[in-house]
Amino acid sequence: MTLPTSGFLEQLDEYDRMARQAALSYLRGSGVSSYVGVPAADYLQRPGKGLRPALCLATCTAFGGDVQDALPSAAAIELFHTAFLVHDDVEDDSELRRGAPTLHRRYGRALAMNTGDGLAVLALGALRDNEYRLGRRLAAQIWSEFDLMARQTVDGQARELGWQLEGRTDLTPGDYLDMIIQKTCWYTTLLPLRVGALIGARNPADLEPMLRFGFFLGAAFQIRDDILNLIGSEAAYGKELLGDLREGKQTLMLIHLFAATEHANRDRVAEFVALPPHERSAEVIAEVLAMMQSHGSVAFAEEFARGIARSAASAFEEAFANVPDSPSRRFVRDLIPFMVDRER
Amino acid sequence: MTLPTSGFLEQLDEYDRMARQAALSYLRGSGVSSYVGVPAADYLQRPGKGLRPALCLATCTAFGGDVQDALPSAAAIELFHTAFLVHDDVEDDSELRRGAPTLHRRYGRALAMNTGDGLAVLALGALRDNEYRLGRRLAAQIWSEFDLMARQTVDGQARELGWQLEGRTDLTPGDYLDMIIQKTCWYTTLLPLRVGALIGARNPADLEPMLRFGFFLGAAFQIRDDILNLIGSEAAYGKELLGDLREGKQTLMLIHLFAATEHANRDRVAEFVALPPHERSAEVIAEVLAMMQSHGSVAFAEEFARGIARSAASAFEEAFANVPDSPSRRFVRDLIPFMVDRER
Repeated sequence: MTLPTSGFLEQLDEYDRMARQAALSYLRGSGVSSYVGVPAADYLQRPGKGLRPALCLATCTAFGGDVQDALPSAAAIELFHTAFLVHDDVEDDSELRRGAPTLHRRYGRALAMNTGDGLAVLALGALRDNEYRLGRRLAAQIWSEFDLMARQTVDGQARELGWQLEGRTDLTPGDYLDMIIQKTCWYTTLLPLRVGALIGARNPADLEPMLRFGFFLGAAFQIRDDILNLIGSEAAYGKELLGDLREGKQTLMLIHLFAATEHANRDRVAEFVALPPHERSAEVIAEVLAMMQSHGSVAFAEEFARGIARSAASAFEEAFANVPDSPSRRFVRDLIPFMVDRER
Repeated sequence: MTLPTSGFLEQLDEYDRMARQAALSYLRGSGVSSYVGVPAADYLQRPGKGLRPALCLATCTAFGGDVQDALPSAAAIELFHTAFLVHDDVEDDSELRRGAPTLHRRYGRALAMNTGDGLAVLALGALRDNEYRLGRRLAAQIWSEFDLMARQTVDGQARELGWQLEGRTDLTPGDYLDMIIQKTCWYTTLLPLRVGALIGARNPADLEPMLRFGFFLGAAFQIRDDILNLIGSEAAYGKELLGDLREGKQTLMLIHLFAATEHANRDRVAEFVALPPHERSAEVIAEVLAMMQSHGSVAFAEEFARGIARSAASAFEEAFANVPDSPSRRFVRDLIPFMVDRER
């Protein structure tokens, strides 16, 4: 695994600061009342990683574009991401986000849901600036990418939730990967990469190689996220641990555990998956976690993530083959080890 | 009050059928999985009034346009409306919608929220068809109307929810009207009217007179809705009654009750408003409803709605002054008495 270039984290912080500032300025310029404005600014002002807008800004720069040209899109990515987080936290009834109470715990479920809707509306508004800056044709292409992303994200989220409701016991790692391409990769990596390349290269580059790279990079991110939810440090992770187990989410670890257990043990896991979330007690969650550890399910997922990261590294070389070396190109490459090694 | 022209309800049903069919065809053509598709089609297949798309289709026709030209916009209106209903039902934890269990009671909160997000994404997709059918410029104008509407709706909803959280006791009928312009009128009447006129007249008509008409028409609708929530027939209304009281919503009746009571009675109402929703028992809700009846708060709101409807009738003549008589023009005018007399 390539070690990150020195200065990687500083560059990430700088991209994060730019995108967040732009997102906040769209919020402040929107004319909404403080009933929307205050809760909508809440998560944006908490320390986040800013991976998604950073990937868009760095890709635009690496492909020869001006970072300012990608700023409305990066702000839209950050605003959409924040909208998803707010709704996701309500959906999972999570307690913590970025080390503080979730929005619905702070303002009530109704206002939080409405704030998520508002953030999505503001994201769409940010995209309109592309028309003035990039011209109508490119703006329309970017719009199409966001439209596609939104459909994929909603569909992937529905698939994951549907699997939970069905208490599925027959899923494979391939099913899991198909689901996270939709749920996670489109908005985390595929969209930022494709939009960044579109803006940076101006004439529509061949975006196909980006699909493979974005898929592997996003999958590495999601698998790491699932692992941190199980065995991370709550202080670094910023969310309460074990939420995925409580929700009965179909992770690689759970899918592995089904494959690795037999008879009574397997029945026990199937029973756990079939429970409604509020009946999954701390005891039974701890029991399933211990089974995952003893059957090597966590180690399996960690090894799986490392394999995916290796595939990401070769897909990167293909997708960025015609892109000359630069700090922004190195930044994108350095995101690969960051995805699988991060603690938050 | 003008009596509705015979055939009004049949025409309403016909517009409703057209818009609903178009909305369902966007859903079916979207490529989303059944995890989104099935719950997203649920409300669309229940009997609704279809007022909003009907207003858009009728206005387009009255202004000289082809009803087909307004169909993508009418479908988008219906899809957005359905998205709002789904989220609104989660926000208020309502039990019934259109005479059957709400989506989150049927599929769980998480899947319902995600379905609402999906319906909004599909609505945006429907708007893209305007570009091919109406040209880029008109499509962009329509898009701006939807963007403005979405901001207003989110802001109005936040204001209402914020007032509930604050337990406000100082609001006036003027505050209430300001709030429902944002929360209700934009998406119920202003947007359908303005978009219908834009498409029907092709060259951008003066949309200012429409603002007054749409405001009065939408306000009449919302006040009637609040009254039905208190004293309607649950079978006709299709939602459980008294939900607004349980939620502590600031309606004209509640605002009137504050103004009409003094001393201990007023303190009793203030206490009620300050309670969290789950502490508003059936007994205390019945007590406040009885106070509203005995202080004439319901009669006040009914009279207020009739006054608003009279203003709507004169604003209609102004907004449609240059529009020749036609069945569609008469349909729009007939919506005024329908708004204040309806039982569902």
